Amino acid sequence: MEFDHAGIATDDLDDLADLYDGLLDATLAHEEEFDGLRVAFLDLGNGHLELLEPLEPLPGAEGAIPRYLDEHGPGIHHLALRTDDIEAALDTAREAGVDLVDEEPRPGAWGHHVAFLHPATTGGVLVEFVER
Amino acid sequence: MEFDHAGIATDDLDDLADLYDGLLDATLAHEEEFDGLRVAFLDLGNGHLELLEPLEPLPGAEGAIPRYLDEHGPGIHHLALRTDDIEAALDTAREAGVDLVDEEPRPGAWGHHVAFLHPATTGGVLVEFVER
Repeated sequence: MEFDHAGIATDDLDDLADLYDGLLDATLAHEEEFDGLRVAFLDLGNGHLELLEPLEPLPGAEGAIPRYLDEHGPGIHHLALRTDDIEAALDTAREAGVDLVDEEPRPGAWGHHVAFLHPATTGGVLVEFVER
Repeated sequence: MEFDHAGIATDDLDDLADLYDGLLDATLAHEEEFDGLRVAFLDLGNGHLELLEPLEPLPGAEGAIPRYLDEHGPGIHHLALRTDDIEAALDTAREAGVDLVDEEPRPGAWGHHVAFLHPATTGGVLVEFVER
């Protein structure tokens, strides 16, 4: 399974996108509003950085990213791996004894099918499977 | 600048390497002891996962990874981007107003030249530049 993207929670998407453009030459590949968030994908050539900013002001906004920002501040939120068959990947995860946040794939940003695994059973890493 | 690896702090490298082998088909590409750590690189095809386990028992071990494990528990510690010219990348970072943990490249695991940027100035992400 290949690297797809690293998901980064931020309270200032525009500022961070500008910084990573200059610092990493990671240019904006896609942007949308999704699930209460502004979401931007920056191109790394062999994958992306996904910047995630809550649409509602903090504190008080609901959802995983506002909660993460409240508790940890900005930073790396999850690691996404690319698969051609997300159903098979979820079956493999079940067989490995991994707890699933999403028992079935669901629509993610950029039209992807995604499913998250529970970090308590994956070494503290919030792993996302992505099928494009 | 391309994705090189995600660095993951763990207190049980063998267990996590086995899990990611089964879960992600990420096989062991390299392993060494470096700077007070057991370090394993798992192959993702377009990059690696770097697992980092302190050699000394916790708590009490010194260094960035033991400190991270003490404060946060296991999880994603840093994000590494690959460059062909790490000196130029550090100059770009300085010009962008980013604080450097390493003013000059230093030897990293797997014979790489590496330099870390201060997360307070990179959106909360501990960014590592890697020149192979």
